[in-house]
Amino acid sequence: MNLQDRLVELEESFNNYWMKFLKEDEPAILYNAARHLPIGGGKRLRPFLVMISCESVFGDIEKTYPFGAALELMHNFTLVHDDIMDKSKLRRNVPTVHVKYGEPAAILAGDLLFARSFEAMHDLSVDCNVFKELDRMLVQCILNICEGQQIDMEFENRKIVTKDEYIDMIIRKTAVLFRLASQGGAIIGNGNKEEISALTEYGLNLGLSFQIWDDFLDMSSNEKTLGKDIGNDIRNGKKTLIAVHSLHNATGDDKRILDQYFGNINSSDEDIKRVFSLFKDMGSIDYAKNKSLEYNQKAKSALGVLRDSEAKEMLYDLADYSIQREK
Amino acid sequence: MNLQDRLVELEESFNNYWMKFLKEDEPAILYNAARHLPIGGGKRLRPFLVMISCESVFGDIEKTYPFGAALELMHNFTLVHDDIMDKSKLRRNVPTVHVKYGEPAAILAGDLLFARSFEAMHDLSVDCNVFKELDRMLVQCILNICEGQQIDMEFENRKIVTKDEYIDMIIRKTAVLFRLASQGGAIIGNGNKEEISALTEYGLNLGLSFQIWDDFLDMSSNEKTLGKDIGNDIRNGKKTLIAVHSLHNATGDDKRILDQYFGNINSSDEDIKRVFSLFKDMGSIDYAKNKSLEYNQKAKSALGVLRDSEAKEMLYDLADYSIQREK
Repeated sequence: MNLQDRLVELEESFNNYWMKFLKEDEPAILYNAARHLPIGGGKRLRPFLVMISCESVFGDIEKTYPFGAALELMHNFTLVHDDIMDKSKLRRNVPTVHVKYGEPAAILAGDLLFARSFEAMHDLSVDCNVFKELDRMLVQCILNICEGQQIDMEFENRKIVTKDEYIDMIIRKTAVLFRLASQGGAIIGNGNKEEISALTEYGLNLGLSFQIWDDFLDMSSNEKTLGKDIGNDIRNGKKTLIAVHSLHNATGDDKRILDQYFGNINSSDEDIKRVFSLFKDMGSIDYAKNKSLEYNQKAKSALGVLRDSEAKEMLYDLADYSIQREK
Repeated sequence: MNLQDRLVELEESFNNYWMKFLKEDEPAILYNAARHLPIGGGKRLRPFLVMISCESVFGDIEKTYPFGAALELMHNFTLVHDDIMDKSKLRRNVPTVHVKYGEPAAILAGDLLFARSFEAMHDLSVDCNVFKELDRMLVQCILNICEGQQIDMEFENRKIVTKDEYIDMIIRKTAVLFRLASQGGAIIGNGNKEEISALTEYGLNLGLSFQIWDDFLDMSSNEKTLGKDIGNDIRNGKKTLIAVHSLHNATGDDKRILDQYFGNINSSDEDIKRVFSLFKDMGSIDYAKNKSLEYNQKAKSALGVLRDSEAKEMLYDLADYSIQREK
């Protein structure tokens, strides 16, 4: 079975399971606001990663559903709150929760999803000490995500961000949740120490590759249109790896262009095009692409210690998929 | 030892313990924002309730610290987010977190305290199954608090709220956390079934008494000054038990006054005084006071099954204290 078919198959059975955490209830506004984003779509990449990691150590996929649900609920909680903080109007082409339900209900809806995440953990059928270990890891993961989001916001107001600082930020904001997915899957599947460690390494690097590919995709897919998003990111001075690379290497006229138009809310569309051309000419877009491929390779290399299986092949395919996707 | 001295003594040793969840860290803005409210004060009533409940079943007080910390962190998280939703500028006479650090950092600070609450749970030295039971109860408690806050916000836009609806709202928003405090203390202290059940009943009724006393106090303590808060509550149509009582019983001219000035953002200070006089003349303020005393009595009655001890006396004193306090 190819990756795409497997994704669809598992997504369906996972969706059947986790809907119990997203039921309609009273007060209706709160529960509808909490359902809005998770019901509206999403690739369920994190639960999928939990499942396949578990299967790759020859564990039982169904045992992972509660943990996958916990991570997916947590992921959705962070999206709801991030959208408020970032004042985002749209996600997945529909109005964000705070736009549709107002900010107070959106804050509460995020809080509810947060609580539901820990509720889902209690559905796990694992040894009590394993439960505690996973629960503790989930707590640490959220603390990291909060830190990552704060750092990301602060980056927008800074002139210079180093590559190391950028990588540290996306480790916290994105990669730790990927890492916890594959690590948790391996633990639930009773993997041995080497397998757990390999899958932990895989998830972290997959997350890094995934996030940087997002940066690359946002920039390159908008090359022809130079759409609103790319313009806003440049006007807001968003520190993607691409921007970080250019800001670090630019000298002379290039530096002056960046100083003048990057992170300048009044930059015209013409100014945005100049910054974009500069990113391209300085090799920053290629740099980010290669960095993503590098982490992707690292992720795949980590899988070497796993016994051969269909699931192991899926993990390779998942890594490939994450650098082929176009949205 | 009297209640006040015991409160001070236990507060000090509890504060020494839970500071580890409120350390300064990086990013500094996030951690300072999370520390702002809990460090700034608070009576630590919930941890105190956990401790004394545990002691009243002859358990070891120190074993409860992590649970008390979990509840106090959860309580503070709800205050931080509620203040954003309610656009409150001051709490305990200092600027609220979102006023001081901005809304994005305040949302994240609340999320961090939320996560820290579950982190504190992992400090518990109890049987693993007891841990899971308490953790599950904590999750349910937060779900209830989210519901309560949503219902409370919706009440402001409704003409009529019944007494039962009001009580149901404050059960979720306030009393469940008090209930969990005394119940959890009894469980950690290895109380028997009857003791746990009695202390569960005690906490719930204490919470109800406490919240209604707050309503009463806000109204009566401002009688002379008719300060800003009371005016705002009347202008915003805040459904306290006092307002609920008047809205339910008013007829004729009284009803017209309420229709015109209660929940009317344009009401003058003179209008506010008329509504306030009406609350008083209709016996609504006394009604709320008596309702609080009634729940207080219920709380104390529940303690009958407990063996005599100094801690049991403290629980009686705590109930008395909650209807004597003036802030």
